[in-house]
Amino acid sequence: MTFASAFAQLLDLVGTFAFAISGALVAVRNRLDLFGVLLLSFTAATAGGVLRDVLLGLTPPLAIVDWRYLAISIAAGLLTFFRHAQVERMRNPVQITDAIGLAMFAVIGSTRALDAGLGPGGAIMLGMVSGIGGGMARDMLVAQVPSVLKRELYAVAALVGAAVIVAGDMLDLPREPIAVASMVLCFTLRWLAIRHGWRLPVSGG
Amino acid sequence: MTFASAFAQLLDLVGTFAFAISGALVAVRNRLDLFGVLLLSFTAATAGGVLRDVLLGLTPPLAIVDWRYLAISIAAGLLTFFRHAQVERMRNPVQITDAIGLAMFAVIGSTRALDAGLGPGGAIMLGMVSGIGGGMARDMLVAQVPSVLKRELYAVAALVGAAVIVAGDMLDLPREPIAVASMVLCFTLRWLAIRHGWRLPVSGG
Amino acid sequence: MTFASAFAQLLDLVGTFAFAISGALVAVRNRLDLFGVLLLSFTAATAGGVLRDVLLGLTPPLAIVDWRYLAISIAAGLLTFFRHAQVERMRNPVQITDAIGLAMFAVIGSTRALDAGLGPGGAIMLGMVSGIGGGMARDMLVAQVPSVLKRELYAVAALVGAAVIVAGDMLDLPREPIAVASMVLCFTLRWLAIRHGWRLPVSGG
Repeated sequence: MTFASAFAQLLDLVGTFAFAISGALVAVRNRLDLFGVLLLSFTAATAGGVLRDVLLGLTPPLAIVDWRYLAISIAAGLLTFFRHAQVERMRNPVQITDAIGLAMFAVIGSTRALDAGLGPGGAIMLGMVSGIGGGMARDMLVAQVPSVLKRELYAVAALVGAAVIVAGDMLDLPREPIAVASMVLCFTLRWLAIRHGWRLPVSGG
Repeated sequence: MTFASAFAQLLDLVGTFAFAISGALVAVRNRLDLFGVLLLSFTAATAGGVLRDVLLGLTPPLAIVDWRYLAISIAAGLLTFFRHAQVERMRNPVQITDAIGLAMFAVIGSTRALDAGLGPGGAIMLGMVSGIGGGMARDMLVAQVPSVLKRELYAVAALVGAAVIVAGDMLDLPREPIAVASMVLCFTLRWLAIRHGWRLPVSGG
Repeated sequence: MTFASAFAQLLDLVGTFAFAISGALVAVRNRLDLFGVLLLSFTAATAGGVLRDVLLGLTPPLAIVDWRYLAISIAAGLLTFFRHAQVERMRNPVQITDAIGLAMFAVIGSTRALDAGLGPGGAIMLGMVSGIGGGMARDMLVAQVPSVLKRELYAVAALVGAAVIVAGDMLDLPREPIAVASMVLCFTLRWLAIRHGWRLPVSGG
């Protein structure tokens, strides 16, 4: 139990780091200054969870209370700022850790929503918001259409992960194996989508 | 009384549907994928009310708790996605239902704010926010300046509707006739603005 | 004591006015209509404090409850709308009052966060958010990258001001002299940055 929750915390922080890297990369590409890079790191890493907590009325949000989110975001931001070329080249590891973060955040978000008493629809939504909110805020801060609305399956992977959590809860299944199953499914779906370029359709007009 | 509140609920859902259609249309025009279309449907339909509830501390917001908002948004999004050309052609009915939604949301928003103990200024503001917030979020998600800041009278119609509610409350007038008067006024103002191209002035420099 | 707090209130309202002017100027330059100008005035003046209060769970936010923020924003918006050319020409006084606002908001924001029980990291963050949030929302509403992410030291000045408040609190120093020191430092830093064009570095790639 303690080991499992420590492992979950580790994955949460790994995901936070990956999301922060994605924010910093977008910031550097858009020629933001050092402060802009750090702000986008932190925003990409935490905006999904912050929005989730605000919607649930759980204020102040975890990401502001727990200093580790800020510390990890700053570390990721500085690394990307000073070693931009190298970080850009590590595309594969960044995408893998980003997919881990997505899966982790979908699990944490939907669980937190269920614990706060939300129904199944709301819990799935907030699980998804936890996963995609950071990337959306990141893109909006550089005045671009959030890439999650256009690129390979991303929100759908978070949605599926959150739906597994909610279904497990409704069937009264034990939480930990379900959380693992949810994460594996979300991660695999996202990973296959990247490898095979799976996309959702666009309206035929 | 029951009939009146059932009718009000019906209008709320009609307005939700119209706002969701407007979100889906913007999404399809911007070539978003199916998920993007559904997200913009839901955002356009609910962001105003969600922002209002968050500002009032009424969390979780109605739109996340009551599954009907999500269901209606998805229905509107799918319809627009698969029958885009036809929906685009139904411009007049869409604008009429949108104006109904605007009026309904201004009434609901200002009433909810008064019930939460807000003063007149705050209640008018939140009534207006309920009406225009969804459209603003929709436009910002596709990286455009919200059309409400530039086109024919729209926010002003919501403002007038909300002001009628607040004035009625201050004068202790019965709520239901005032709500009807507010809606009719807001709807009429918006409708005349569309027909005659009424706009607010732009600064002369 | 009473005099000091009255003076603090005065500076808060002066800062609100300056921020509202900055919002109105951006709105007029982007050819928004009268409503758009007033909305951007109010948003630029209050979004930082509103975000801070929402994150702290202090709802409804001060800016919605206290009518003076709305009144001052409308006054600044109308002035800029009808006397745009003159206001544009008063660049120096606008920048000075804006720097006063930044300093004041950083002090108020971090103090409010400490009073709400937040730790040092969170309090510094919210002090900074109070200072820069309005300008960020203003720029995002006209679909531009927030200038605070690119221009001369701005967020850093707010950060330093907030850090002084938090350090003073941790060392149990008396609040008022520390608040004055924080403001003077933040204002001076911002002012020197404008005069000398001090900027943060951009990543070398």
